[in-house]
Amino acid sequence: MLDFTYYAPTEVVFGREAESHVARLVRKYGGRKILVHYGGGSAKRSGLLDKVCDQLAAEGIEFLLLGGVVPNPRLSLVHEGIELCRREGIDLILAIGGGSAIDSSKAIAYGVPYEGDVWDFFEGKAKVARALPVGCVVTNPASGSEMSDSCVISNEETRDKRGVSTPFGRCKFAVSNPERTFTLPAWQTAAGVTDIMMHTMERYFSNDMDMTLTEALAEALLRTLKDAAPKALADPCDYQARTQIMWGGSLAHNGLTECGMTRDWACHKMEHELSAMFDVTHGAGLSALWPTWARYVYRSNPERFVRFAVNVLGVQFDGSAESTALAGIDAMEAFYRSIGMPVTITGLLGRAITDDEAAEMARRCSHDGTITVGRLRVLDRNDIFEIYKLAR
Amino acid sequence: MLDFTYYAPTEVVFGREAESHVARLVRKYGGRKILVHYGGGSAKRSGLLDKVCDQLAAEGIEFLLLGGVVPNPRLSLVHEGIELCRREGIDLILAIGGGSAIDSSKAIAYGVPYEGDVWDFFEGKAKVARALPVGCVVTNPASGSEMSDSCVISNEETRDKRGVSTPFGRCKFAVSNPERTFTLPAWQTAAGVTDIMMHTMERYFSNDMDMTLTEALAEALLRTLKDAAPKALADPCDYQARTQIMWGGSLAHNGLTECGMTRDWACHKMEHELSAMFDVTHGAGLSALWPTWARYVYRSNPERFVRFAVNVLGVQFDGSAESTALAGIDAMEAFYRSIGMPVTITGLLGRAITDDEAAEMARRCSHDGTITVGRLRVLDRNDIFEIYKLAR
Repeated sequence: MLDFTYYAPTEVVFGREAESHVARLVRKYGGRKILVHYGGGSAKRSGLLDKVCDQLAAEGIEFLLLGGVVPNPRLSLVHEGIELCRREGIDLILAIGGGSAIDSSKAIAYGVPYEGDVWDFFEGKAKVARALPVGCVVTNPASGSEMSDSCVISNEETRDKRGVSTPFGRCKFAVSNPERTFTLPAWQTAAGVTDIMMHTMERYFSNDMDMTLTEALAEALLRTLKDAAPKALADPCDYQARTQIMWGGSLAHNGLTECGMTRDWACHKMEHELSAMFDVTHGAGLSALWPTWARYVYRSNPERFVRFAVNVLGVQFDGSAESTALAGIDAMEAFYRSIGMPVTITGLLGRAITDDEAAEMARRCSHDGTITVGRLRVLDRNDIFEIYKLAR
Repeated sequence: MLDFTYYAPTEVVFGREAESHVARLVRKYGGRKILVHYGGGSAKRSGLLDKVCDQLAAEGIEFLLLGGVVPNPRLSLVHEGIELCRREGIDLILAIGGGSAIDSSKAIAYGVPYEGDVWDFFEGKAKVARALPVGCVVTNPASGSEMSDSCVISNEETRDKRGVSTPFGRCKFAVSNPERTFTLPAWQTAAGVTDIMMHTMERYFSNDMDMTLTEALAEALLRTLKDAAPKALADPCDYQARTQIMWGGSLAHNGLTECGMTRDWACHKMEHELSAMFDVTHGAGLSALWPTWARYVYRSNPERFVRFAVNVLGVQFDGSAESTALAGIDAMEAFYRSIGMPVTITGLLGRAITDDEAAEMARRCSHDGTITVGRLRVLDRNDIFEIYKLAR
């Protein structure tokens, strides 16, 4: 097993009364004049934005608003936020929303004290060395960005979607009230669960097979999310199910489920190209690729797929690693279908992709054939091309 | 389920190469002149103390040594440490050892900036508002103090053993190398596993039964530790088993396994009186009490004991909650015996306690009958007295 560092310092305040702590947390982490950064109208419509602003005003905390974050959050708005923060002397950024608002806030936080273009960090040209503090009020559990060190931004000019991971990406605090997720549409709920589970699956599908505590925790998390998803879809106001999804979303991506394990991340990297080219929902892009990826790679480590089948999906071991592994992949595919997620790219886009589109995504995903993706099985440009075509 | 705050900011550096990061971490968290605080001779004999000191010297970090921490660490040494830190202008405390060294370090860290007697915090007369930063190099996984907010100190004058929990009790960093635990005697290994499992069991035995993710994580942790213990006892140099125990020790007490749940802590509170009166190994004191506690309280929530039996110990549900719950308690008792832990106070002390001793411990545990302990079943002075006698 690998040596590891576990560092997840975010203070998470969770539950029905969580939002009443926002102003206290802003102050605790040094916010005196802050940027409140959010997405479309839902934070406004739900009354959450007003509630937070009233609380900040009552506590004497100055704030500016910057809305307009979209899914697959864009570099142009990040640039705008950086300028605004510099001009106004902002000292903390409060994101309200899901992964898009949080990631956009993180990128602004990296950019404010940096002299160059913030995109440098996403191109690997520079390393984040300082950042404004970021806190968040989570309304859409999916990205896990509230506890993760990750931030993914789309450059709309180059059509690149790139992520950067840094300890500076850890939010100082996160406020999570499952009641805020009652109004999420079924599609968003299912895509969120898919993304959450995939954050742990990208770590679980590892060739390191001897860190049993991490594996057992990962399996427990995956089983719990798989059980909670249909309940939340059947009754959107099921507080208990919403809680498992929301807290699971934080734990699935805070590092807990990777301690000692080599990570894979092939599906996320391939999905980023799908999102960049077609602007799809990230979770749905993941489920459209995963079954094909799994069938393409499982022979590299059948035992891992057997454990997944047995311990996560409740498949009985039938004496053959091969067929049990495949039965597990079938069961996961059936789960995706059952919650309304696509299991092919056609299911995702409503049409098959062309060979040219597959080749272009493979070119970008492999940085013109200069890098590979994945660890359980290392995938080169040609493998990636094949997977896109097979997933068609 | 309960609203909760999860805040476990300790940076854990874990694995075979972990110790090479000590000086870097000391510097990162502000140490320029530090106190190295440790216990008996094992840190010296193993060469760990020299290794750390060489590293500090090479990095130009000034340090003073204060050894002599004993199990159930004592207030007098804490007082000595506080004086030393004040006199020498110490800015960080580095504990080397297990829970005793870490807790002694935490208490010193609380006391240095406090004008009154540090014991005030343990008597509830004052709240910790500031503390020196504490880091640690863990050599004996048991207490979980490296990630917990807890600190337990024994006042040898009054024979009181008291704990205080505060966010200031979270270590800034923890360095854990499972190889350092290869030389732990079997007794310490088994007592450590018992303590670790109990940290999660004290949270798991709750009347909140709807936080399924926390429950599933707790069960995964308990199963993993139960499997690892006999392996580490059979082969003390089993790195994989030692890793599960060491990392499990950190996670069992960092708050992860209590999110959303009411905690119990009755066994710990009753054990503290045993330790205070007889200076026993804490983990062994816990196993000596738990089976009796469990049989005394299980009727308050048989369903919880059934889940424990089935999901942790692999007991088959036999159609009766009552008998399945009792079978689970029997199985846990058998596990304690199998790793050499006592399951009665006689097994612990080599003699039965007298009624007067039981009464005196019950008096102290209940603060002269003014407080109760436990939540799954609330226990008053008389209940505690009965449990001590039944555990005899």
